Amino acid sequence: MAKIVAFGEIMLRLSPPGHLRFSQSPVLEQAFGGGEANVAVSLAGFGHQAAFVTRLPKNDIAENAIRQLRGHGVDTSAILRGGERMGIYFLEAGAAQRASHVVYDRAHSAIAEIDPAELDWPRLLAGADWFHFTGITPALSEGAARAAEEGATCARRLGIPVSFDVNYRRKLWSLERAREVMVRLAAHVDYLIGGVEDAENIYGVEVGLAASGRPDLALYPGVAERLVQKFGFQGVALTRRESHSASHNGWSAFYATGGKGYFGRAYEIHPIVDRVGGGDSFSAGLIHGLATGRDPQAALDFAVAASCLKHSIAGDFNLVSVAEVEALVGGDGSGRVQR
Amino acid sequence: MAKIVAFGEIMLRLSPPGHLRFSQSPVLEQAFGGGEANVAVSLAGFGHQAAFVTRLPKNDIAENAIRQLRGHGVDTSAILRGGERMGIYFLEAGAAQRASHVVYDRAHSAIAEIDPAELDWPRLLAGADWFHFTGITPALSEGAARAAEEGATCARRLGIPVSFDVNYRRKLWSLERAREVMVRLAAHVDYLIGGVEDAENIYGVEVGLAASGRPDLALYPGVAERLVQKFGFQGVALTRRESHSASHNGWSAFYATGGKGYFGRAYEIHPIVDRVGGGDSFSAGLIHGLATGRDPQAALDFAVAASCLKHSIAGDFNLVSVAEVEALVGGDGSGRVQR
Amino acid sequence: MAKIVAFGEIMLRLSPPGHLRFSQSPVLEQAFGGGEANVAVSLAGFGHQAAFVTRLPKNDIAENAIRQLRGHGVDTSAILRGGERMGIYFLEAGAAQRASHVVYDRAHSAIAEIDPAELDWPRLLAGADWFHFTGITPALSEGAARAAEEGATCARRLGIPVSFDVNYRRKLWSLERAREVMVRLAAHVDYLIGGVEDAENIYGVEVGLAASGRPDLALYPGVAERLVQKFGFQGVALTRRESHSASHNGWSAFYATGGKGYFGRAYEIHPIVDRVGGGDSFSAGLIHGLATGRDPQAALDFAVAASCLKHSIAGDFNLVSVAEVEALVGGDGSGRVQR
Amino acid sequence: MAKIVAFGEIMLRLSPPGHLRFSQSPVLEQAFGGGEANVAVSLAGFGHQAAFVTRLPKNDIAENAIRQLRGHGVDTSAILRGGERMGIYFLEAGAAQRASHVVYDRAHSAIAEIDPAELDWPRLLAGADWFHFTGITPALSEGAARAAEEGATCARRLGIPVSFDVNYRRKLWSLERAREVMVRLAAHVDYLIGGVEDAENIYGVEVGLAASGRPDLALYPGVAERLVQKFGFQGVALTRRESHSASHNGWSAFYATGGKGYFGRAYEIHPIVDRVGGGDSFSAGLIHGLATGRDPQAALDFAVAASCLKHSIAGDFNLVSVAEVEALVGGDGSGRVQR
Amino acid sequence: MAKIVAFGEIMLRLSPPGHLRFSQSPVLEQAFGGGEANVAVSLAGFGHQAAFVTRLPKNDIAENAIRQLRGHGVDTSAILRGGERMGIYFLEAGAAQRASHVVYDRAHSAIAEIDPAELDWPRLLAGADWFHFTGITPALSEGAARAAEEGATCARRLGIPVSFDVNYRRKLWSLERAREVMVRLAAHVDYLIGGVEDAENIYGVEVGLAASGRPDLALYPGVAERLVQKFGFQGVALTRRESHSASHNGWSAFYATGGKGYFGRAYEIHPIVDRVGGGDSFSAGLIHGLATGRDPQAALDFAVAASCLKHSIAGDFNLVSVAEVEALVGGDGSGRVQR
Amino acid sequence: MAKIVAFGEIMLRLSPPGHLRFSQSPVLEQAFGGGEANVAVSLAGFGHQAAFVTRLPKNDIAENAIRQLRGHGVDTSAILRGGERMGIYFLEAGAAQRASHVVYDRAHSAIAEIDPAELDWPRLLAGADWFHFTGITPALSEGAARAAEEGATCARRLGIPVSFDVNYRRKLWSLERAREVMVRLAAHVDYLIGGVEDAENIYGVEVGLAASGRPDLALYPGVAERLVQKFGFQGVALTRRESHSASHNGWSAFYATGGKGYFGRAYEIHPIVDRVGGGDSFSAGLIHGLATGRDPQAALDFAVAASCLKHSIAGDFNLVSVAEVEALVGGDGSGRVQR
Repeated sequence: MAKIVAFGEIMLRLSPPGHLRFSQSPVLEQAFGGGEANVAVSLAGFGHQAAFVTRLPKNDIAENAIRQLRGHGVDTSAILRGGERMGIYFLEAGAAQRASHVVYDRAHSAIAEIDPAELDWPRLLAGADWFHFTGITPALSEGAARAAEEGATCARRLGIPVSFDVNYRRKLWSLERAREVMVRLAAHVDYLIGGVEDAENIYGVEVGLAASGRPDLALYPGVAERLVQKFGFQGVALTRRESHSASHNGWSAFYATGGKGYFGRAYEIHPIVDRVGGGDSFSAGLIHGLATGRDPQAALDFAVAASCLKHSIAGDFNLVSVAEVEALVGGDGSGRVQR
Repeated sequence: MAKIVAFGEIMLRLSPPGHLRFSQSPVLEQAFGGGEANVAVSLAGFGHQAAFVTRLPKNDIAENAIRQLRGHGVDTSAILRGGERMGIYFLEAGAAQRASHVVYDRAHSAIAEIDPAELDWPRLLAGADWFHFTGITPALSEGAARAAEEGATCARRLGIPVSFDVNYRRKLWSLERAREVMVRLAAHVDYLIGGVEDAENIYGVEVGLAASGRPDLALYPGVAERLVQKFGFQGVALTRRESHSASHNGWSAFYATGGKGYFGRAYEIHPIVDRVGGGDSFSAGLIHGLATGRDPQAALDFAVAASCLKHSIAGDFNLVSVAEVEALVGGDGSGRVQR
Repeated sequence: MAKIVAFGEIMLRLSPPGHLRFSQSPVLEQAFGGGEANVAVSLAGFGHQAAFVTRLPKNDIAENAIRQLRGHGVDTSAILRGGERMGIYFLEAGAAQRASHVVYDRAHSAIAEIDPAELDWPRLLAGADWFHFTGITPALSEGAARAAEEGATCARRLGIPVSFDVNYRRKLWSLERAREVMVRLAAHVDYLIGGVEDAENIYGVEVGLAASGRPDLALYPGVAERLVQKFGFQGVALTRRESHSASHNGWSAFYATGGKGYFGRAYEIHPIVDRVGGGDSFSAGLIHGLATGRDPQAALDFAVAASCLKHSIAGDFNLVSVAEVEALVGGDGSGRVQR
Repeated sequence: MAKIVAFGEIMLRLSPPGHLRFSQSPVLEQAFGGGEANVAVSLAGFGHQAAFVTRLPKNDIAENAIRQLRGHGVDTSAILRGGERMGIYFLEAGAAQRASHVVYDRAHSAIAEIDPAELDWPRLLAGADWFHFTGITPALSEGAARAAEEGATCARRLGIPVSFDVNYRRKLWSLERAREVMVRLAAHVDYLIGGVEDAENIYGVEVGLAASGRPDLALYPGVAERLVQKFGFQGVALTRRESHSASHNGWSAFYATGGKGYFGRAYEIHPIVDRVGGGDSFSAGLIHGLATGRDPQAALDFAVAASCLKHSIAGDFNLVSVAEVEALVGGDGSGRVQR
Repeated sequence: MAKIVAFGEIMLRLSPPGHLRFSQSPVLEQAFGGGEANVAVSLAGFGHQAAFVTRLPKNDIAENAIRQLRGHGVDTSAILRGGERMGIYFLEAGAAQRASHVVYDRAHSAIAEIDPAELDWPRLLAGADWFHFTGITPALSEGAARAAEEGATCARRLGIPVSFDVNYRRKLWSLERAREVMVRLAAHVDYLIGGVEDAENIYGVEVGLAASGRPDLALYPGVAERLVQKFGFQGVALTRRESHSASHNGWSAFYATGGKGYFGRAYEIHPIVDRVGGGDSFSAGLIHGLATGRDPQAALDFAVAASCLKHSIAGDFNLVSVAEVEALVGGDGSGRVQR
Repeated sequence: MAKIVAFGEIMLRLSPPGHLRFSQSPVLEQAFGGGEANVAVSLAGFGHQAAFVTRLPKNDIAENAIRQLRGHGVDTSAILRGGERMGIYFLEAGAAQRASHVVYDRAHSAIAEIDPAELDWPRLLAGADWFHFTGITPALSEGAARAAEEGATCARRLGIPVSFDVNYRRKLWSLERAREVMVRLAAHVDYLIGGVEDAENIYGVEVGLAASGRPDLALYPGVAERLVQKFGFQGVALTRRESHSASHNGWSAFYATGGKGYFGRAYEIHPIVDRVGGGDSFSAGLIHGLATGRDPQAALDFAVAASCLKHSIAGDFNLVSVAEVEALVGGDGSGRVQR
């Protein structure tokens, strides 16, 4: 299997049980998650050597995050310790027509206040087969943005493939600032993962969202092609979520590489147990497919099936095995009891 | 915002968690609810000054009900204290083809044994912009019926609009008795809220339910028109629930006023988290719309959207904000995570 | 009502709450279940005298199983005490495309190590109106298989009708061994309950599954007819589950007796609260219908409706009353609140 | 073992978990309990045939109470069904210096509204070896008092020993009324169980409580002697609780019979898990001892040890075995793990 | 009753249930608390008009804090809304020899970043009878310190008594800084509440802690006297906690005023349910006593009993009534069930 | 830090929450534990490289056990996978006079059916500084006994110190068989850990338990001395538990080495949160002390304090840090909140 390094933030996630609102529960479920950590956990579960690099304060809450990552088989030995606090996000899960609700409390987190010089990238990436990060990390602070960029640059220098999931969060930064930074980062990225909105809003590829609402699947190949032309990506994956309600989504993706395009199977997911981390589980599935040398269609199919299953699992982490994903790829989505 | 007074019963609600049957759980979830109290909580949540008038015994359970109402911003200062006990209802939530089940234990409650003379309506209604009650209150006892009637009469005398939600409960009284009382009360009501069954069964407006089963939406304007003609209501709202199963309902409403009729949007709600209080949340939404001077279509749209969201919220109370309702009215029922 | 005897294993069932995976929960829900015990509980709930015969060790866990059966009205006085341990099964409930997962820990259970001589069948069956067992019991061990066969033989000798639910479990025994034993047992069975797969795989009735996948309903009468011809069954019931996903199933059945065939109503069940025990609740419903002398269509309708409701109830046991089943048979699957 | 009949009320008991106050918990633990029902459960657990006679409404909550009694092995076949509601008591468990708090909601319960003629005592007591009731039953209503008295009278007539636990509850009736009724009932009682306060307050045996506070143990023999002389009891048991705090009690008892007195061992119980039902478990232990022919000291020792253990068990019911009680009688209160 | 204004921070409190460590629980209990908020809740519970002044961000978590305060009857209308985040503290409850553990995450909270000019003290204190704050507020930031000082100064100017609880937290600021600020604040304080350590460490009153460890009670009058002489306080209350273990504390206090000293009763508290807020409940009890005109001994007795009871209540808030406190003052700490 | 290898069984531990009996809870808390695994977790928590060697089946339950060990930092890479099942123990926690109760379901576990040849001890112990096992492992089966013996023999050959905790479990084997095996094993043991009962019952050192009950502490040095003389141990640790009740124990130990004896501090532990694993946490503490070169008194003090703290922690594992243990050694058992 491959050795993969992911860099980003892991947060404490606090959510009322079930579909309760914040004001209705005397307990909050405690979990941990964050774009790149979720990818690392998925990849460790698929059997890879997955290392997660971040910065966490020296307290019992952060200790607990590390303990959980380690339990899931993630290599946590490169995590820096320091800073005042760990980021938190409060999540209220929606249902039917009621949307899920996130309250971020991640300002001043240890990684947002990172000094890029603390990270010795050549050492962290030694022997690695893959480097992954997302657009959330550069949104956290100038320091975090520089740290991510240095990681990507170093990986490119060492010939390590770099994947990047756009993940634009409007609660974290303005579109203008995001555009500027993400376009600059594109130069260090081999595999881009995002949605058609990102193509238009961040990378300036005209999709026509304003006019047409959700674009037809038929437009996806063209969008991907233009991204490849504009930024020279090795591969471009565009995920597609159709939000019928908070409990029912359509989910699929398109992948373009080597001048060809591949459509993934479309899943109707109902009910959704937890859609947070859906995109991350796609990234992890794609990295798994590519890093293990599958052909593009197989890698995409694995990625879409993995992320379909994620929606049935509580928490940010996609706790599924390769065998489970492959069963779904093979056509068994009937949910029959295995006994 | 407006000052609204609601009068009725608030009960202790005890329900096994999730979809468990009464015999399956060693704990019962404890909440409070009742038609008029639910309306008061909704309206307080929408920013109104909402006062709830009732009678509760002097014990810790009733104290807790008051504490919760107060927490939701309801004015509880006019609640009378006395009587032996507080009404209880046990609720077992159904799923799929299994219906929800209510066991009432509300006989001999403090409000059922109210002496109407305890209520000084002119003082309670001083400065009020709206008075609301439902057909559950007169079903509780002769005293409660008289108290409600005196409230409505006093409101009318003071020029305060009166809304009334029919809410016929066959476990509480016979159809004959209900008809007699509710027809008498109609004289004091400006805004009637109910279903087409109520129009036929209670108010004698021939709908043809027996022959045709669920009547076509096309009949609603005629039914409303006849109610207006017969009783002189200012407005008539008819809600429409299509129970596909305990987990999946269609939900909409029609509103007639000033000689015109308005159809609300129809929502397919799936899964239903809790449908108790659905009608009350509609009443609150309509009162909000009317009391804030919206036009009839806007008031109806707000009411239908508010009550659609209620189905996604556990408990009797509709814990949503005006902004959330307006987002749904504006078309966003996709349940996308806001982050 | 009738006196019914069921023989088989009851296990401790341990499952993470809701849709959590095994690794996600610090608690496991503790329940009890097993094919024949589930049938006994259903029948006791329908008002019959239902006795459950099994073998359980002398410890607090088994004591608890007995206490629960007794609470549900099952006669537990014939349960043998001895052996080392009680079987356990761990159940992880799936959702959407993720299948439920069973981990069996039932080897070396008290009943698997039963000495058939411990059971005095003439005494156990004295006065009984019905004997029921399933294909799980003979799969447990040679001793359990012989004990079941002796029970069925004795019942036949005493003129007591015998029903048998095929319930083939590939984790317990090979198809070859299952075929050999179940064909031998067929000689003692009056009423066979199973699926079309069982007809083909176990009883050698060519259905054409390999070629066509799920066979058309139109083929069911023919399959049943051939089973009757081949084995001389009094009645053959074939259940039909369409697994759209772990959360959504179609459910129906066909019943053949006296040269005629009867189709049950088809239910779309969504969401499924717990599908374990779905087949057992069908068996219990059918036994209820037949033992109370209903006509075949009515017996089948009761059985299908009973098992439809089971899917909305957590745990193995179908905790519904005759009145609830009959309401669904009568057409009320709307899930409306009764109040 | 013996056949024992107990008559009284069983209530739904609702309590916040742990030491939470009523206002602090969104769930209430649901259990069932009541003086005589608790005795019946204890005795069934000790292996006796224990029948519980009461009156309960026809609803799912009462059904659940019956299911639990039956699970614990109590014969529930003589329970009358009718009436409007089942009594409820809300219990908030104290800790340290904070007392436990009971809110009764038992007015108008099915048994309070019993018509004594509904009970066919000669049939109910046929074959019985013991009849037990407490001073709570006559406090419920005139009808309940008469029903209890008729039960006791009938038992005496049939030569069945009658035990009576005074259990004076000041929230249910006045001291005057209690005195009048309990003195009258004393004529039908063989075995009296109570405290020294009862001797003085109810039965007019001067103890000197006002002057001295808690009386010295040395006074107990005299008090018991005077009770025997005044009312002709066969045996008198006086329990002694020293409430150091809600979490720490001393517990013992004295028993007088045949002109002799016996002191039980004194236990210091810390922490108390649940002291409700402590007295009932003593009654059950004493009945067990006497009905199985133990000598007075052995019967008393068993009773005190059984009730000591009750304090470590949540809920009203004393879920301990004879072996566990005997181990404590034998001196093992060390709480060592058995493995 | 009196109108009391308290100013300070209210935090989200997150704690694993029971005695679990941070790493052991998938849920955290969610509550709210903070020195001055706790005092306000206590006083509202005692029947006073208690207003709490603070600054909280505009998000659902803060909304929930406000809802809870309002539910407990606290006037929340003067709470400022703004800032980035609300302070959080994580609490792990110890047991026996294991200490409780607090992880603060309160940096950058809305109140720490307050601009003192946002508070219009003359308006906030209009009509007030008492002003209370603690040494935690000035520890938060320079702005918070100034805001508190301005509040105290304004109160003094308006002739409103000011009470101050020293509450030195070494995790928040250095001893040097604390000394400087608290000595300056002493000029505006009428009633000082603290421990003998505070007298020595903060106010420079030599107690001899280093030499003797915990000082003898006999020294308390002298310490209080010197504090009065040095700073001119109207009253000085010194609480005394003897930590035998995390589960068992001794608790008492001494109060000096008008040249006389008063000793409170000493309570042994075992087990401690939650000792957080113990000091705050004492402050509230003392303010209640003084503001309602009790004599010093009675005020002190009420305060010590109130805070004794607090230790039996989960969460920061002391949810007890005046009647419950008075029962304990009157000598009933036996924890007997009231029924 | 040191590299430590422990060999033995890890079981699934299932227990009702709090003090509930097996029959009272619908959920069982799921944890993992076992003598040697507990030691490995402790040592990993103290910062050592702790490897745990065992045999576990290939299923999700065992996977979960491994995940948890790995989360706590234990090296699980040498765990063999195979066998039918994983051992289970059911634990009901006692309180006050009621003892805790263990139901073992560990027969036929993967490790009990181990083939000693599967373990390549020279490789497993390469580079190790310590080898630890207990008397539970040889009690499981002949194969497990031989595997343990080969591990100890190999360690001795490699010059690695071997510690052995007697842990005699009468539910697993007879005293005769235990004696025979444990005396044989003594030849490979450097450090013996046990109680005075073990010295007498297993190793034939006359203590006089029968005559005197619990022997005086004064006898401990003599007992240890005779064990050293008889078996040539490097060190002998004798723990001493005084079970006042299930909730209150005294706890201390004595350690003899190099001809000298050392007494540990005696702790009164009240309340006990969980005493399972108390002895294992002592072993881990002693190994920590010895392996880090502390002097005997310091090693013993650390071990006794570590195991004292264990009693306050739920589950088998002693989740404390070196700093927490050292604080208690340093005298702080006051349980004061650190803030």
